[in-house]
Amino acid sequence: MKKSMIFLVSSLLLSTPSFAAGDAAAGKAKSATCVACHGAKGISTNPIYPNLAGQHAEYITAQLKAFKSKKRINAVMDPFIQALSDKDMEDLGAYYESLGAGSDDSSGGGRRRRR
Amino acid sequence: MKKSMIFLVSSLLLSTPSFAAGDAAAGKAKSATCVACHGAKGISTNPIYPNLAGQHAEYITAQLKAFKSKKRINAVMDPFIQALSDKDMEDLGAYYESLGAGSDDSSGGGRRRRR
Repeated sequence: MKKSMIFLVSSLLLSTPSFAAGDAAAGKAKSATCVACHGAKGISTNPIYPNLAGQHAEYITAQLKAFKSKKRINAVMDPFIQALSDKDMEDLGAYYESLGAGSDDSSGGGRRRRR
Repeated sequence: MKKSMIFLVSSLLLSTPSFAAGDAAAGKAKSATCVACHGAKGISTNPIYPNLAGQHAEYITAQLKAFKSKKRINAVMDPFIQALSDKDMEDLGAYYESLGAGSDDSSGGGRRRRR
């Protein structure tokens, strides 16, 4: 009983932090190649590309990892993804989440245009 | 290299006009099953699920079609996707785009919490 409680508690403790929080400032520095499609502030001007501003860091990181492992396949992302480490993907997730959905974007793209 | 560039350019050219604008009001009515994961206003409370509020309609519709065709695979989406017609997916895209990124969400989920 005691043993199974320890197992339960430790597996709960282990399960949540499987997502490592990234560093938004580092992510900003790494986002230079993302800008062409996803916009300077994470708001893409072409509607075939997703807005990233304010998206959950965990979701963004998971998708980047899926692209890298080819679980999710996209020809446009492919040339960029292989160079990214897990840390890079976590930092990028943290950066785009930190922008917030109503991020100041002077280009007036996607979301804000439609408010 | 040249071949892949031609493929990339032609697929970009082809992808734009194939998108038919959906009906946001109809999409709202069809979004009932989406709420559990993506939130009442398209802001998901669990960071593993994407926020949809203010996302480009065309991107959302393309992803729904990719789930249906199994080009993009996700076990959670799978039970819901097969029942959706192209029109349903276009309407859902239009609805979530229409919400805008700063949509009033009394549950205070994802994006707004981080502003």
